[in-house]
Amino acid sequence: MNYQPTPEDKFSFGLWTVGWQGRDPFGDATRAALDPADSVRHLAELGAYGVTFHDDDLIPFGSSDSEREGHVKRFRQALDATGLVVPMATTNLFTHPVFKDGGFTANDRDVRRYALRKTMRNIDLAAELGAHTYVAWGGREGAESGAAKDVTVALDRMKEAFDLLGEYVTTQGYALRFAIEPKPNEPRGDILLPTVGHALAFIERLEHPELYGVNPEVGHEQMAGLNFPHSIAQALWSGKLFHIDLNGQTGIKYDQDLRFGAGDLRSAFWLVDLLERGGYDGPRHFDFKPPRTEDFEGVWASAAGCMRNYLILRERAAAFRADPEVREALRVARLDELAVPTAEDGLSGLLADRSAYEAFDVEEAAARGMAFERLDQLAMDHLLAARS
Amino acid sequence: MNYQPTPEDKFSFGLWTVGWQGRDPFGDATRAALDPADSVRHLAELGAYGVTFHDDDLIPFGSSDSEREGHVKRFRQALDATGLVVPMATTNLFTHPVFKDGGFTANDRDVRRYALRKTMRNIDLAAELGAHTYVAWGGREGAESGAAKDVTVALDRMKEAFDLLGEYVTTQGYALRFAIEPKPNEPRGDILLPTVGHALAFIERLEHPELYGVNPEVGHEQMAGLNFPHSIAQALWSGKLFHIDLNGQTGIKYDQDLRFGAGDLRSAFWLVDLLERGGYDGPRHFDFKPPRTEDFEGVWASAAGCMRNYLILRERAAAFRADPEVREALRVARLDELAVPTAEDGLSGLLADRSAYEAFDVEEAAARGMAFERLDQLAMDHLLAARS
Amino acid sequence: MNYQPTPEDKFSFGLWTVGWQGRDPFGDATRAALDPADSVRHLAELGAYGVTFHDDDLIPFGSSDSEREGHVKRFRQALDATGLVVPMATTNLFTHPVFKDGGFTANDRDVRRYALRKTMRNIDLAAELGAHTYVAWGGREGAESGAAKDVTVALDRMKEAFDLLGEYVTTQGYALRFAIEPKPNEPRGDILLPTVGHALAFIERLEHPELYGVNPEVGHEQMAGLNFPHSIAQALWSGKLFHIDLNGQTGIKYDQDLRFGAGDLRSAFWLVDLLERGGYDGPRHFDFKPPRTEDFEGVWASAAGCMRNYLILRERAAAFRADPEVREALRVARLDELAVPTAEDGLSGLLADRSAYEAFDVEEAAARGMAFERLDQLAMDHLLAARS
Amino acid sequence: MNYQPTPEDKFSFGLWTVGWQGRDPFGDATRAALDPADSVRHLAELGAYGVTFHDDDLIPFGSSDSEREGHVKRFRQALDATGLVVPMATTNLFTHPVFKDGGFTANDRDVRRYALRKTMRNIDLAAELGAHTYVAWGGREGAESGAAKDVTVALDRMKEAFDLLGEYVTTQGYALRFAIEPKPNEPRGDILLPTVGHALAFIERLEHPELYGVNPEVGHEQMAGLNFPHSIAQALWSGKLFHIDLNGQTGIKYDQDLRFGAGDLRSAFWLVDLLERGGYDGPRHFDFKPPRTEDFEGVWASAAGCMRNYLILRERAAAFRADPEVREALRVARLDELAVPTAEDGLSGLLADRSAYEAFDVEEAAARGMAFERLDQLAMDHLLAARS
Repeated sequence: MNYQPTPEDKFSFGLWTVGWQGRDPFGDATRAALDPADSVRHLAELGAYGVTFHDDDLIPFGSSDSEREGHVKRFRQALDATGLVVPMATTNLFTHPVFKDGGFTANDRDVRRYALRKTMRNIDLAAELGAHTYVAWGGREGAESGAAKDVTVALDRMKEAFDLLGEYVTTQGYALRFAIEPKPNEPRGDILLPTVGHALAFIERLEHPELYGVNPEVGHEQMAGLNFPHSIAQALWSGKLFHIDLNGQTGIKYDQDLRFGAGDLRSAFWLVDLLERGGYDGPRHFDFKPPRTEDFEGVWASAAGCMRNYLILRERAAAFRADPEVREALRVARLDELAVPTAEDGLSGLLADRSAYEAFDVEEAAARGMAFERLDQLAMDHLLAARS
Repeated sequence: MNYQPTPEDKFSFGLWTVGWQGRDPFGDATRAALDPADSVRHLAELGAYGVTFHDDDLIPFGSSDSEREGHVKRFRQALDATGLVVPMATTNLFTHPVFKDGGFTANDRDVRRYALRKTMRNIDLAAELGAHTYVAWGGREGAESGAAKDVTVALDRMKEAFDLLGEYVTTQGYALRFAIEPKPNEPRGDILLPTVGHALAFIERLEHPELYGVNPEVGHEQMAGLNFPHSIAQALWSGKLFHIDLNGQTGIKYDQDLRFGAGDLRSAFWLVDLLERGGYDGPRHFDFKPPRTEDFEGVWASAAGCMRNYLILRERAAAFRADPEVREALRVARLDELAVPTAEDGLSGLLADRSAYEAFDVEEAAARGMAFERLDQLAMDHLLAARS
Repeated sequence: MNYQPTPEDKFSFGLWTVGWQGRDPFGDATRAALDPADSVRHLAELGAYGVTFHDDDLIPFGSSDSEREGHVKRFRQALDATGLVVPMATTNLFTHPVFKDGGFTANDRDVRRYALRKTMRNIDLAAELGAHTYVAWGGREGAESGAAKDVTVALDRMKEAFDLLGEYVTTQGYALRFAIEPKPNEPRGDILLPTVGHALAFIERLEHPELYGVNPEVGHEQMAGLNFPHSIAQALWSGKLFHIDLNGQTGIKYDQDLRFGAGDLRSAFWLVDLLERGGYDGPRHFDFKPPRTEDFEGVWASAAGCMRNYLILRERAAAFRADPEVREALRVARLDELAVPTAEDGLSGLLADRSAYEAFDVEEAAARGMAFERLDQLAMDHLLAARS
Repeated sequence: MNYQPTPEDKFSFGLWTVGWQGRDPFGDATRAALDPADSVRHLAELGAYGVTFHDDDLIPFGSSDSEREGHVKRFRQALDATGLVVPMATTNLFTHPVFKDGGFTANDRDVRRYALRKTMRNIDLAAELGAHTYVAWGGREGAESGAAKDVTVALDRMKEAFDLLGEYVTTQGYALRFAIEPKPNEPRGDILLPTVGHALAFIERLEHPELYGVNPEVGHEQMAGLNFPHSIAQALWSGKLFHIDLNGQTGIKYDQDLRFGAGDLRSAFWLVDLLERGGYDGPRHFDFKPPRTEDFEGVWASAAGCMRNYLILRERAAAFRADPEVREALRVARLDELAVPTAEDGLSGLLADRSAYEAFDVEEAAARGMAFERLDQLAMDHLLAARS
């Protein structure tokens, strides 16, 4: 088989991913800084279609206006030269110490105003570069201790911030929607909007919910031990999967940002199956960190691996769904019945139906096997290309 | 101090809590069954105000109509004799093998219809007994393997079920609202609506969202490593904290249902602080399991401990909030500033304010200490009654 | 490929695995009891080589001596008829309420004595049936609260118990060794000897450490978030891998006992790679529970899946190790260098070697990439049969 | 009460704790560097008795010999001026990129030799400064992927390293013992010797086990969901608790290093109870990180809080143990029976005792309640000073 990515596959990468220098809580950088334009060229060569960025990835914090122009110009040139697009951008509201207690929900009002302005400035650039999605990861919005953050009040501030941002893009006429990225913890002890669910619920209380969706990240949801495809399914069901961050994580621990496919492989299989079948047609965006053991050759091998693994899993998921034996097994497991309304006859019909309750043979129904193990083994066989 | 509970404290217990016989995945029952009427009397003696139940707690599964009447009558008599109320009731859609693949989202349509009818029947009883909240814990709604449940389709069925139940209570004219109880896993590998956030988000897609809120349980949210008071704060912020299940859990592991106060004590302190300050005036409901090492004396000691610990924590939280030094520390940590809108001047004001961005002294702002450690130590001192 | 197991593959199953009736903390049995002799026949048909048991699996608790004889006789006949062997046996010290506070470390001395005698009685049967390994899982040895168990004292009792059991098998002349099975929690809040490491360390304080090793279980170590192959490697390195329990687990949560291959598939791949290369030639023992959604057809499909997945992974691991490109990648990642002693020149040589420190070019060494991502992608390709 | 620490309390702090600048995976430093001599003076003022260090904390990596002398001299002067002692020292084998794949088990042999020499050099200084314990935290000894580290071979290298270090201190005549500090993960995906148990087991395979013990850290064991006091109890039982790192952690997530008392407060209570009763008389060493939200005032408040919380908990634990009602409750919970040998009559006595098995009334014994809930509530009352 050929697992060579092309732009049609819609693979995108953050500048901060391949550009990660390997600084971690216990160690210094192991790699030099990458020039964003070089990253664009490298990613294009590997078969990517898009590149994304935080403002500070492209324009170092504190740059003058003319420096800023220079950075943007060189980036644009690389985009033009390679054909790569910028489907998404986002703001860095976490690296500089000024954000140590958050951006939109910092106790310090000055910081909140600054965070909003910094975001708006980068929204301008995002729009200019053609992005359609603006991601907001509030990694510093949270606390390590109980009294430090009044969460109901902080949610008022969070709502205020997103409402203002919505007003801003509307006023400016930008074709941008926001995607909120949840995470349970790290770098804060507990982060606000910790899961896909919490973010989806929050959105419904905004002035214009239609402007906001989620940007779930594999590892973030798995850091709470949650089933990532399940959360993605709920996001899709809610019409809110605006973007996605693909990577790998080996369970509940620090944020690992492994390449896609590493970590929970079976979950990755079901994720790809869901994305390919489920009505998501946005970028397949990789938000990973090549381990700090790697030199640049390793960085590009890691980036290539993300795409390759997606393509392998896509192939396997498609074969699974196409297999007549699988279709039969799905029927035996009564997935077709799940798709039928429970009460097409409405409430009155249901209440009048003695076979539904008074005359229902509970023991007989209880004895029906679900045949899930056979079905799951078929999935395993397809994942491992072990059918024959 | 006096930590003796009274009905004014609004402590309620599930029949299934003190009545738990100690059956676990690896062991048989260690205690005999308790008569519900006896439980009512015991709880009343301990100072509780309310008692709650699953249909099968009160009326054993498979009872005839006349048996049912007898059970209900004896229960009513105990309520009348003690003055205990029934603020909440719920359905057992998990014990009988017929629910092995779920109730409202079982692949088997017959089971779904049966589950709805079983629920409606107990809603009648709940209404008759004066309950205002009807809890729905979908512990079997989930899967152990990826193809066994099409989650987007299952959410359609879940919505259908809750919409039908809403129609039912409305049609019947019952003064009941529903409280959905999230849980991440156990007894299913992954359960649908795994966290408070996911449940809150789901509710917004129902036909009449106002009829539905959440019933968060301490241990369930902690099984996902989430900060329970944070999730409660978001539920309150969303106007959706309809009920609460108090207990204890020692981290991410199987569902322990320890007595309230056991497990994460500091989190329990912040929870009580939040409930007492935060606009929740419903029952303080304990959903715990006295460990199977205990005989009945231990069962009642455990139940009494739940209430005692709540009262101790309530006293400590009140002292914390009343302490002038704490108020000063909150001010120094700028909690007052968090309560101030970020942009009273609106979007245009913010954009025009050069001090917010262009002239903002980022380094000066970054250098401001948040003084959270002092504040948290004050909280610790109050929790431990170590001030002086 | 052919993934049909044969007795040469040394696959064994516990009677309690296929015989699990599906009782869980929230639900009643979904399957009838299986006759042990029938299980033996079924497992033989599927290609297993061995069967294992707890005393109470074979001889229901409380059986008379003559009933016991009958049960053993029928079991033997099934063994004889099928050729299945009994490589291991173990004691049930957890189901009966008498063990609610433990067996060997119950606070109640009578219970401890009873537990020892119950164990010795089943050791007799194990020896008689030809078992070489006697597993001890102390699932009830632990506590839910801090004062309930004085752990240093409990470890004295644990040591006393194992020393007595060692004396017993020695005295009786049995060719049996003990394998201690660690688990972090469930059914107790915290279990003594929670990990492979804690069990290995404990063994070294016994009177005859050579009689004792470990029986690690995939899911148990993963319930503590630990890397299972790493713990197995340390057990092998310590000469203590006497037995192994294979199954699946999806992260830190309740004990799932999924079929082998389900759960963390990549970890399963590395485990099989290690077992096949690492000097373990004992049974590949499956300690899993077919989900309670399944009827008996599902039970046997699940059992067959355990073996099939092992065989698939064995094939893939062998191909990985045989691939010349992998060998080259291992060399580039300097695995060969890891196998070379650090100081063949001894302490004095090392101290005298200026190139090791004073003249060492730290920056040059720091710049060497480890090439682990390429290596891991090769492993992924082999696991998924995606090389070409 | 007075919770003012004095040197008699044996509180020590790492230079790297108060000196942590707040760099984390997502953010830059929020505090300036602290001068080690200033830290010594500050800690002395707060009531500490000792200070500890990594080589690079005291002498910046790459210092010349004369710079080194200067740093040491100023540190000594501060020690002399304040009376603070240096009970422990350790090596930084994790910050510099050269250690990106480990120190003692790096695949790169040059790195291993360098790591050993760097360690030996700092051992000289530790001995010179009067330390009795040398801690070894192998935070980089591990892997993110399966083939990158052959764990059995790596354990050979680990053993070789510790044997060489043992030979070194013996040869030099230093009165130093080693304390190995386990950690499950972070900064590596999985770290070798992940728990107290694994480290204790490893030690038994060294040439001179008596030279090595463990240095458990609260948060590290809790990152694996393990009960910290239980692991400490096993370390004490094994005669191997050579040192301890006290801090706080809120469950299974990234390494938080909160001040002692934060995180799991009830576990901290049992830990202090155990240390004070259990035969550990070494330093109470705090290995924490003042959150990066704090300025220096917050740093010292955080350090003071560590000691204050220990003293509060010490007081409460002592009161718990002294309370006659507690003693009675311990007796009722049969802790006294746990302290009695199970078989003073030896194996033959046990086998001959019909009351132990044949005539044992299992049901009667099973019915005995353990009274753990009452006991645990007494502990809670003492912890919270709520007895009256």
